[in-house]
Amino acid sequence: MKARVTVTLKTGILDPQGKAIEGALKSLGVAGIASVRQGKVFDIELAGADPAQAEAALKDAADKLLANTVIENYNIEVRS
Amino acid sequence: MKARVTVTLKTGILDPQGKAIEGALKSLGVAGIASVRQGKVFDIELAGADPAQAEAALKDAADKLLANTVIENYNIEVRS
Repeated sequence: MKARVTVTLKTGILDPQGKAIEGALKSLGVAGIASVRQGKVFDIELAGADPAQAEAALKDAADKLLANTVIENYNIEVRS
Repeated sequence: MKARVTVTLKTGILDPQGKAIEGALKSLGVAGIASVRQGKVFDIELAGADPAQAEAALKDAADKLLANTVIENYNIEVRS
């Protein structure tokens, strides 16, 4: 089974990396970009075939390692 | 207008970061994870209101800066 965990900064948390990308895009002449925020994505393959069990494992993984829940949100998408 | 650009490694490209996460999850006792590949996600706000123009700007941004198209694929999602 495949899944994707997307980790993004919470609203209000400063994102200097995103700001740098924004500036770089401006100096590269890419028009129309108002703001950029960067996050992480994890494409995970799971051994089992039970979606509920997979989601529990992914939640566990995100809480323990993939996201810093103090400053980041995560979203889990399980694809059969 | 909001958009999300997701950048992932092409199939066959080694992902040592993903491998490290895989190992860390195993040692943390998270069960059922077969493999992990890490990518990047960019949440972008655009100034204009024309979806076609936005998509063109994002393609430009991804080609010039956000993705290394030799080893990475990117995917653009425009949300109105």
